[in-house]
Amino acid sequence: MNLNNSSIPANRSTALLTDKYELTMLEAALIDGTAERPATFEVFSRRLPNERRYGVVAGTARVLNAIRDFVFTEDQLADLDFLNADTLEYLRNYRFKGQVDGYREGEIYFPNSPLLTVRGTFAECVILETVILSIMNADSAVASAAARMVTAADGRPIIEMGSRRAHEYAAVTASRAAYLAGFVATSNLEAAYRYGIPASGTSAHAWTLLHINEDGTPNEAAAFKSQIESLGVGTTLLVDTYDITQGVATAIEVAGTELGGVRIDSGDLGVMARKVRKQLDDLNAHNTKIVVSSDLDEFAIAGLRGEPVDVYGVGTSVVNGSGAPTAGLVYKLVEVNGHPVAKRSRNKESHGGAKRAVRTHRDTGTAIEEVVFPFNNDTPDTCKLNVLQLTIPLMRDGEIVPGLPTLEESRDYLAKQLVSLPWEGLALSRDEPVLHTRFSGFPDA
Amino acid sequence: MNLNNSSIPANRSTALLTDKYELTMLEAALIDGTAERPATFEVFSRRLPNERRYGVVAGTARVLNAIRDFVFTEDQLADLDFLNADTLEYLRNYRFKGQVDGYREGEIYFPNSPLLTVRGTFAECVILETVILSIMNADSAVASAAARMVTAADGRPIIEMGSRRAHEYAAVTASRAAYLAGFVATSNLEAAYRYGIPASGTSAHAWTLLHINEDGTPNEAAAFKSQIESLGVGTTLLVDTYDITQGVATAIEVAGTELGGVRIDSGDLGVMARKVRKQLDDLNAHNTKIVVSSDLDEFAIAGLRGEPVDVYGVGTSVVNGSGAPTAGLVYKLVEVNGHPVAKRSRNKESHGGAKRAVRTHRDTGTAIEEVVFPFNNDTPDTCKLNVLQLTIPLMRDGEIVPGLPTLEESRDYLAKQLVSLPWEGLALSRDEPVLHTRFSGFPDA
Repeated sequence: MNLNNSSIPANRSTALLTDKYELTMLEAALIDGTAERPATFEVFSRRLPNERRYGVVAGTARVLNAIRDFVFTEDQLADLDFLNADTLEYLRNYRFKGQVDGYREGEIYFPNSPLLTVRGTFAECVILETVILSIMNADSAVASAAARMVTAADGRPIIEMGSRRAHEYAAVTASRAAYLAGFVATSNLEAAYRYGIPASGTSAHAWTLLHINEDGTPNEAAAFKSQIESLGVGTTLLVDTYDITQGVATAIEVAGTELGGVRIDSGDLGVMARKVRKQLDDLNAHNTKIVVSSDLDEFAIAGLRGEPVDVYGVGTSVVNGSGAPTAGLVYKLVEVNGHPVAKRSRNKESHGGAKRAVRTHRDTGTAIEEVVFPFNNDTPDTCKLNVLQLTIPLMRDGEIVPGLPTLEESRDYLAKQLVSLPWEGLALSRDEPVLHTRFSGFPDA
Repeated sequence: MNLNNSSIPANRSTALLTDKYELTMLEAALIDGTAERPATFEVFSRRLPNERRYGVVAGTARVLNAIRDFVFTEDQLADLDFLNADTLEYLRNYRFKGQVDGYREGEIYFPNSPLLTVRGTFAECVILETVILSIMNADSAVASAAARMVTAADGRPIIEMGSRRAHEYAAVTASRAAYLAGFVATSNLEAAYRYGIPASGTSAHAWTLLHINEDGTPNEAAAFKSQIESLGVGTTLLVDTYDITQGVATAIEVAGTELGGVRIDSGDLGVMARKVRKQLDDLNAHNTKIVVSSDLDEFAIAGLRGEPVDVYGVGTSVVNGSGAPTAGLVYKLVEVNGHPVAKRSRNKESHGGAKRAVRTHRDTGTAIEEVVFPFNNDTPDTCKLNVLQLTIPLMRDGEIVPGLPTLEESRDYLAKQLVSLPWEGLALSRDEPVLHTRFSGFPDA
């Protein structure tokens, strides 16, 4: 046992990011001989949170690495004192050797879309449940919220600055998911370091407050001067520490009319943006941009569409999935020994068995529906509608398939896919999923 | 740049869990000579989320370790190409050498409680903002929600099983925060390993679904038999995969009347618990406990108080702070060169300057109010009411103060503090903070 309070694991192993019952099930299966049964687990959602119209798959690349890194160290095994020697030996030698197929990162999804299909023995698949779901639930929650914000911003850039409102490592991957969804930059340096995301940021209120005179009275001009000296006139000055109108006047006085931007972080952002734009224009600072931040979510962003805002800074709401901090994805056993299995459910549309999916499109490129069918069937006849294969190979015999999309490629892909949705799918209002999912080729369908 | 998609940092350094603007401010301060100004930053909340009546401080021990581990590696420095040589040299040698005081972990807090007071040079304090807030916001959000659930459960044990609904590392620290707040166990093995929290868990629906006959038909009895063989008759069997009544009958048939427990994970939990209790009693399985899980939050837990439920399993809602995934704590510069500083605010109760706090109590032990006063003042005259010092030393000259409370001690402490609140403070309904916070000894108070 390692009783330090550090938030940082001692090694790369993901093997203990696991619920205890997965290992007790493993042990029971090793004892009763069911451990080696061929099994298929599927990741899917039963519904979209907050009656949204679509979801965005994120975390796939991280999941594949987590499966690769799912290796037990001797230290970890020593702590699993509730397991017998055979089970410990199984874990000591554990490497996932199965097959993973699924939706690519940046793909759009709907209820019952088979996002990930994990095939192997029961034993090797069952113990991956928690780490797969943790990653996909967190990342997809952020990407799904972020994509709506990007739509709401209508082409204006959004910077992710929510690290302080999320767990220190969830913040890093939230930056990644927000970037995948179309945000242009992050405040988070670890995300920049780890994923190559552009980092952004200039100063906080503390910077202005630091600059006081000998007698303790404020000296906003000194703060602005010093920031420009260090970061250049293209920097963005935070103008709302004291009085915004005075702050803008001081900013232009100090920086001149080529100041890069001013940031407003409080108050009625629409009213203030209009007022500040007029003031800047009156001062001939026509190129100085207005950056707004302060508890923005997709609705607040949309509400500022008519205002002279150039850049949005978004924090709390994006890193916490804007009211839906988890995507609600589940990992369910759907096939054993070639037989479909399923928990009793009121949901008539639920089907056992391994699955794949395609999406059909009109000639115009607009998506029509998703069709989910048995994994080993041919793609169903879809009247030669433009068919997008949603299920792609991700792992073969435990190895990550080479050439999977990079983060940048997935980001571009999502932007294109969003355009293919029927236009009402991009509305912020609550409604049903914008595409229907049809099951085809199942015994009772 | 390290472009792998791993969720695991390559080393223990917390230094890049930082927003870029903290380092640009540092550089500007090194250039203009303000870097070495004595400064005080304070962590506090402006309000409690969702109109709760109190909050619970969590993450303090993790914060202190994160400050200790805030050390830049050469790899990290190489990536900070937006900084000049002097700034990089400053960071290369950076170790926090200042003072940290604050509320102990497991302490109750209210709006404006000075939870953490960080004193040092501006430079050494400003760059800790993000990592301090990330940890305290995440951990306090979970602990604050979890404490309400523990009260709602009215003495019945709650097991945390939400790992799959949170980021893979946020899940681990969420387990810790839930345990701090009085949960009795976690499903998460990394939390058990890292923090010594009791781990718990037996089986999932996949276990029952795995056990099918040759022809693919269900064989629930085989699953139950095998689980008992592996885990003993004291185990808890999941009885709702197919038909609950049949599941309970099969469970007792297989296990006998000394079965440890049955778990119900779907349906109307109150109705089902009553029905299952009667069935168990009719079968003479009076000692078999009923465990319920399935989207429980504090309100659902309270709603089951009158039902024959023995153990609650709580997932999504606790790890995501039950509607408040962040505690909303901020880290603000409050003092420079001995002068109080503050952003212009509509909140009249806001005061600059370093602060400490005490809580007063009646002879009966019931808390009366919090009193916040200037850090260097004597404790204000409180009419000899029982005074609890809320602010304790946490770090001295960059070293963690020895002998700080362990997780177990903090857990016991919180349980005692909750009893000291006026009884209405433990109600689940929305209302004002149950204790008033009074400012004493400030110039304009």
